[in-house]
Amino acid sequence: MSINVGIMGYGNLGSGVELALRTAEDMRLAAIFTRRNPANVPPHGYVPVVGANDAAKWQDSIDVMIMCGGSYNDLPEQTPRMAELFNVVDSFDTHAKIPEHFAAVDKAAKSGGHIGIISVGWDPGLFSLARTYFGAVLPDGADYTFWGRGVSQGHSDAIRRVKGVKDAKQYTVPIESALSAVRNGENPTLTARQKHLRECFVVAEEGADKAAIEHDIKTMPNYFADYDTTVHFVSREELDKNHGGLPHGGFVLRSGATGAEHEHKHVAEFSLKLDSNPEFTAGVLVAYARAAYRLQKEGQSGAKTVLDIAPAYLAAQTGEELRRTLL
Amino acid sequence: MSINVGIMGYGNLGSGVELALRTAEDMRLAAIFTRRNPANVPPHGYVPVVGANDAAKWQDSIDVMIMCGGSYNDLPEQTPRMAELFNVVDSFDTHAKIPEHFAAVDKAAKSGGHIGIISVGWDPGLFSLARTYFGAVLPDGADYTFWGRGVSQGHSDAIRRVKGVKDAKQYTVPIESALSAVRNGENPTLTARQKHLRECFVVAEEGADKAAIEHDIKTMPNYFADYDTTVHFVSREELDKNHGGLPHGGFVLRSGATGAEHEHKHVAEFSLKLDSNPEFTAGVLVAYARAAYRLQKEGQSGAKTVLDIAPAYLAAQTGEELRRTLL
Repeated sequence: MSINVGIMGYGNLGSGVELALRTAEDMRLAAIFTRRNPANVPPHGYVPVVGANDAAKWQDSIDVMIMCGGSYNDLPEQTPRMAELFNVVDSFDTHAKIPEHFAAVDKAAKSGGHIGIISVGWDPGLFSLARTYFGAVLPDGADYTFWGRGVSQGHSDAIRRVKGVKDAKQYTVPIESALSAVRNGENPTLTARQKHLRECFVVAEEGADKAAIEHDIKTMPNYFADYDTTVHFVSREELDKNHGGLPHGGFVLRSGATGAEHEHKHVAEFSLKLDSNPEFTAGVLVAYARAAYRLQKEGQSGAKTVLDIAPAYLAAQTGEELRRTLL
Repeated sequence: MSINVGIMGYGNLGSGVELALRTAEDMRLAAIFTRRNPANVPPHGYVPVVGANDAAKWQDSIDVMIMCGGSYNDLPEQTPRMAELFNVVDSFDTHAKIPEHFAAVDKAAKSGGHIGIISVGWDPGLFSLARTYFGAVLPDGADYTFWGRGVSQGHSDAIRRVKGVKDAKQYTVPIESALSAVRNGENPTLTARQKHLRECFVVAEEGADKAAIEHDIKTMPNYFADYDTTVHFVSREELDKNHGGLPHGGFVLRSGATGAEHEHKHVAEFSLKLDSNPEFTAGVLVAYARAAYRLQKEGQSGAKTVLDIAPAYLAAQTGEELRRTLL
């Protein structure tokens, strides 16, 4: 008996989920849902592509819907609505709005008798797990999260809105000396500027004022003004060739002490180095879709986050196999 | 309302737990239990030191008993017996015997209506969590665990049994080039010798045959024969001064791929660098003691491992606080 999975939204993340499901022997892709005209999604043959508005008709044939829309426009509305109909998993990542989103999904999921797991991915997600475990086992200490080296979609979009810019990619880069200080247990206090660099690759419109573009980027509040930012002008070809991917990653560290005199130092570190941010995130979503299915089978309902779910629920193996091979 | 904790066994680990409980505001050390004559344990004043045989009398005043005995002689017998009387947490680390120990604790804990969490620490423990999470989210990949640089008690004990040896400390050392190959996503196949070095510091008896000692160590099956081993003879003073601590640590890595052609590589890494192995392990035990208490309050019973427990149960914060601050 396979777990039947639906994908809602077919962008980078949705197609990542499609690929990830191929490596999950206990799961099956049942249908892809899109708000575009289904005829405009590349034909799949092996799986139906359905209009998002017809999702309700699939209630009996889908066990978990993996929500692959964006956190800004799509998920706040879509995830609660779908949680009435299906078990759902999403990657909602607007940290400040998580409590609000959790409450909305909790209400809808309970009313439908489903499980809704929100904010699944690597941050929020696996990085949140690391922060929680590390803090619980080493309470006398401090947390540090670094991101990168990787492409930030939000910052790339911000550059694209600058006058004279045709296209752009922005890399967030952790500063090695800051990372080293944390690893050495120095417990440094670090400003935004001391933790990350921002590196921008920009295709300018013909005849654009490059000095003005560079100035507009470097002084942009929230996005760049608080960081050391470098701007490289490149051709369209170079951007596509060298900056076409979506790599990312990062580091969560906790540095703490134990002992009667706090004399023993400890450092815990979790890091990711990812060639494809959406494909890796998709793998996390698929593992939590397995958990959503199992939790509902046990009779649970409501909203959950990664912090509420025991790791064994994510694994295809039985508890006995996990104890024998991974413990 | 504090969680009342007992410590069973007062060696390095037991005194580590005593220290760790000081940083847990929601927990209180109720009593220390020892099989020695309680009068021979350094007086504590603030907490009773009780003979292990009197533990049953404390059933009403202890919420969780943290088992701090050894995996070889103590825990296989003690943990099931105590699980009849209390919620228990232990650090049982004989990997091959975990299924058997789990079954014994499960039976006893269910019969007493308690929770028994076994194999808590960093390996098994946090490293098992990393292997499970990494494998679930990146199924197409390979796992690597490296230990060290740190003192292995088992290997140090093995050297002490060699003729002519007065005392010894053995360090397990991960081989940097092997670690780098894994980090680079090369997916190497590594023998025991390629992963770890063994470095021994030995105090010889006066007039002992040092060449024979070195030979006996380096050719010892299971412990040293399969590794590149170096033996340093040192004085008692040097051993105490430079090798008196119990540092340890290690690395869990998973290297895997996603994409239609497995073209995107990903590396997940979790590492620990610990000044004091027993004090860090104690911190993990205390966090899972909190979980044992909460799970039993919910009406659950039986044996659990770290794989069966949602991270939120370990943290002193509420679910709402965790979502707001750590997710």
